[in-house]
Amino acid sequence: MHLGLLYSGGKDSTLAALLLEDFYDVTLVTARFDVTDDWKHARETAEALEFEFQPLDLEREIAEEAVARIRDDGFPRNGIQHVHQHALEELAAAGFDAIADGTRRDDRVPTVSRAQAQSLEDRHDVDYIAPLSGFGRQAVDRLVDAHLEVTVGPSEEIQRADYEAELRAILAAEAGPEAIADCFPDHEQTYVTDVR
Amino acid sequence: MHLGLLYSGGKDSTLAALLLEDFYDVTLVTARFDVTDDWKHARETAEALEFEFQPLDLEREIAEEAVARIRDDGFPRNGIQHVHQHALEELAAAGFDAIADGTRRDDRVPTVSRAQAQSLEDRHDVDYIAPLSGFGRQAVDRLVDAHLEVTVGPSEEIQRADYEAELRAILAAEAGPEAIADCFPDHEQTYVTDVR
Repeated sequence: MHLGLLYSGGKDSTLAALLLEDFYDVTLVTARFDVTDDWKHARETAEALEFEFQPLDLEREIAEEAVARIRDDGFPRNGIQHVHQHALEELAAAGFDAIADGTRRDDRVPTVSRAQAQSLEDRHDVDYIAPLSGFGRQAVDRLVDAHLEVTVGPSEEIQRADYEAELRAILAAEAGPEAIADCFPDHEQTYVTDVR
Repeated sequence: MHLGLLYSGGKDSTLAALLLEDFYDVTLVTARFDVTDDWKHARETAEALEFEFQPLDLEREIAEEAVARIRDDGFPRNGIQHVHQHALEELAAAGFDAIADGTRRDDRVPTVSRAQAQSLEDRHDVDYIAPLSGFGRQAVDRLVDAHLEVTVGPSEEIQRADYEAELRAILAAEAGPEAIADCFPDHEQTYVTDVR
């Protein structure tokens, strides 16, 4: 069975890939808006981990809608959720037998409810799998420590390829670099370099 | 890290074991009330799969409370939930670094809410993991078809070792065998014999 996993190069989606690799033919799929080249960081990590990789082109309009929402809200949660749901819809239509993402039990964003999962599956005749949704933050951290080589840093400095990077670039172009600090609280993000 | 997985010998908890075995030292743990010897079926399957196995002795009082609830309700859901929560509490106190069960995304019983999971983890300093909670029924069925040798049959006929077997035995002793058909709708259960 061919599975497409939404992949950022971060620790969560990388751990999700390792959990699934014995059970599916996993392709790591990174969404991109043609705004920046950040998706290439995910491709590098996918290659280092010896996974198949493919980009998933999304309409720039979706990113612009997300940025407008983030500017209105003053925080990124709803805008990122908007992009994630769109990315899952596009991935579900891409011909895989199953699709997956790296959402954890304790994630506040993005989230995929049971009803949303069932709807995706029914409309696209695909299995949707969230392999980390039964793992809490501490369990994920312990597995990451044991299995991955990870770089940790503030979101704006590290090399990573979730769609936040492109959203931040659009936001900076529209409203200046200072808008990034206003709208994105400075949380740490991670970028995986290799498996141990 | 040592992980104890609540294990019935059924397809869900067996698949959960396979998903976790590359990441934890997994021991399959089967709850028993000293009512019947059904737990031995789970031990046989654990041995066939070459997993560590240990029984988990629960107070017979818990089973009797569950059966009283099932007789009051006329259906097993709340009684089984009562036993499952008690089993998780006992397993959490048994000294493992992490504990797990085979609950699926679409299960109506047993269920473990995010708040219950967090409470278990905080009170017992243990990770609680539900590796199948991100998988829907169809995804589980497809993985089972690909990876397990499974026997399927009505609950009353097949050899299995979830605590339902002992609850049914207590119910039959208290209220006669016909009470089983009244209280347990005839759903199919599965018993794993080996991996493919």
